[in-house]
Amino acid sequence: MTDAADLTARLIRCPSVTPEEGGALALLEGVLADAGFEVHRVDRNGTPNLFARWGAKGARTFGFNGHTDVVPAGDPAAWTHPPFSGLVEEGVIWGRGATDMKSGVAAFAAAAVDFVTATPPDGAIILAITGDEEGPAQDGTRALLDWMAEHDERMDVCIVGEPSNPDFMGEMMKIGRRGSVTFRIKATGLQGHAAYPHRARNPLHALTRFLDDLIASPLDEGTEHFDPSGLQITSIDCGNPASNVIPATATAVVNIRFNDLHSGASLTADLEKRAAAIEAETGVSLSISANISGESFLTKPGAFVDLVRDVVTQETGHQPELSTSGGTSDARFVKDHCPVVEFGLVGHFMHQVDERVPVAQVQQLQSIYRRILERFFA
Amino acid sequence: MTDAADLTARLIRCPSVTPEEGGALALLEGVLADAGFEVHRVDRNGTPNLFARWGAKGARTFGFNGHTDVVPAGDPAAWTHPPFSGLVEEGVIWGRGATDMKSGVAAFAAAAVDFVTATPPDGAIILAITGDEEGPAQDGTRALLDWMAEHDERMDVCIVGEPSNPDFMGEMMKIGRRGSVTFRIKATGLQGHAAYPHRARNPLHALTRFLDDLIASPLDEGTEHFDPSGLQITSIDCGNPASNVIPATATAVVNIRFNDLHSGASLTADLEKRAAAIEAETGVSLSISANISGESFLTKPGAFVDLVRDVVTQETGHQPELSTSGGTSDARFVKDHCPVVEFGLVGHFMHQVDERVPVAQVQQLQSIYRRILERFFA
Repeated sequence: MTDAADLTARLIRCPSVTPEEGGALALLEGVLADAGFEVHRVDRNGTPNLFARWGAKGARTFGFNGHTDVVPAGDPAAWTHPPFSGLVEEGVIWGRGATDMKSGVAAFAAAAVDFVTATPPDGAIILAITGDEEGPAQDGTRALLDWMAEHDERMDVCIVGEPSNPDFMGEMMKIGRRGSVTFRIKATGLQGHAAYPHRARNPLHALTRFLDDLIASPLDEGTEHFDPSGLQITSIDCGNPASNVIPATATAVVNIRFNDLHSGASLTADLEKRAAAIEAETGVSLSISANISGESFLTKPGAFVDLVRDVVTQETGHQPELSTSGGTSDARFVKDHCPVVEFGLVGHFMHQVDERVPVAQVQQLQSIYRRILERFFA
Repeated sequence: MTDAADLTARLIRCPSVTPEEGGALALLEGVLADAGFEVHRVDRNGTPNLFARWGAKGARTFGFNGHTDVVPAGDPAAWTHPPFSGLVEEGVIWGRGATDMKSGVAAFAAAAVDFVTATPPDGAIILAITGDEEGPAQDGTRALLDWMAEHDERMDVCIVGEPSNPDFMGEMMKIGRRGSVTFRIKATGLQGHAAYPHRARNPLHALTRFLDDLIASPLDEGTEHFDPSGLQITSIDCGNPASNVIPATATAVVNIRFNDLHSGASLTADLEKRAAAIEAETGVSLSISANISGESFLTKPGAFVDLVRDVVTQETGHQPELSTSGGTSDARFVKDHCPVVEFGLVGHFMHQVDERVPVAQVQQLQSIYRRILERFFA
């Protein structure tokens, strides 16, 4: 049995703050090569990535995706134990990446190694592990998937091992994600004196009406597998110090998390239409730029989702909710390659000081991944 | 005859940029004392002011109010003639204060001197001239009026000699003014992740709704002597750089110019009521601070207003509009002392580079003021 908890601790000791490799991928490369995996470093533009396959290319293939990079530790003095110590004490592993997600990578790597060693399957297992999920993510999992396409490497299904449970193991698995788009709206009017508004065009009035219109009614009521889409104004800025002056310009930032009723393009078109109506009425120009972080996606419930859910239910005693909530993850890239679900640890302590994880939880996750592989290749 | 145009030019040569006296009040003090006025410097907290009375204290008294301080000239190189040259060329007087309002002060000082010299009235004339109208105005005309109250000095009526005509002499006189109040609204919510708004309270949403409610319908339709009240949002600021974060706080600034249907206090109460309703609904705190620059006031049409209007009509051929439009002036202080109207020059070039005034316009204003005195004491 490969000790996933020990592997987690050893990975934590590699200071792999994005974009540093920190020795983490090298450690995994050794462990996997020793177990008979074919390994390739798939670095792109200086971003380190690791591809590993056991079994024959083109066989029926189960995939895992995860990352070894971590967010910065902040002030080390604020930590109970040094953030890259990987200290194991009273059944708890301490350090940056303990939950997000060196433990998840350790659990699927250990499960895969043990599985192919004990019961070599008629098929293949691919591990696609990146060193840039927390950063720009342009040359991380995307680079791995691009490389795989070029080399005819294919996964039939994939689990992303990100923490997926809010409070306890077995609570939630993710079968998709809402999309995210950020709009910047610049309102340009005509400066003037506050006592003579007829000689000015107030950009803040046009912007207020535009924004109030956006928040006045929900975008939708949600769909079968998705929460309602959500819209948040995250900033409005003008910087006019003179209360007797109508300013010339103002800006607002709006973030929308959207379900499968929308796309980044459909929302952009909708906002542009609303802006044009207010422009026509007020004479204030509202120019909109959109940054689409990811479209919404869904792995429809079916054999693969059922398999994961059944195993999680057996191992934890809880039937996990099939959720599409939360922020973005690399599943947004994997979904273009094959059906993908996310299941991992409890997300407490992610990105926090004193990030830590119980040894037992890592072992339980290892066991769940092992059972999933067994069922998949049964 | 005292030459008001020459006096204007001499006053312009005194560099009396607020709060500097620059020799301007000293010059007037000499001119008025020579004509038999009792003069007092009424300085307060370093702000220079001049009180002058001809005739007996307690007699029926006509008052003039004005200021000798000027706004900065900016870059002197941008001027055709040096801003404090007081150059007179081809019938035009050039320099900072040529319209706002050394010319007005010169015109009423010259008119008063000539009048008391030629036809000593059975009554008194008071000139209350400040060196701080363009600055904070806390120790300017207010200090003069406070000093007058302490010394039993009383005006029965008063003309403020500020430029009152938008485009030509005789176009407009002012018989009141809308009030002005500036509100700062600070919205305090609860910070959170844009993907999990149920765990946050977005101050920008509460603020947007509050502001949209304010601009959705006019405050009123105007009254007999007043334009409709006007509300302008002059800034909204948040400064949140992260589009995936719901900010904790945001602020807005709103300026209201209000007529005689409102007061600073009634508007404050109204905004606080609206804020409380949104607080109750959203859980976002909206705290409001009010800065009342001036309440609205009106000198009701009657004998004094008729007198001024009739003289202006005779002298210019235009019957002036009785207006309450425009920004604030020291009339907002004088109105607590006695009926006040504003009549002066054409306001073009106020606060601008190449501020200048035709000699003929200053002479016409001098003539109007002289005729008003004659009619008042007839």
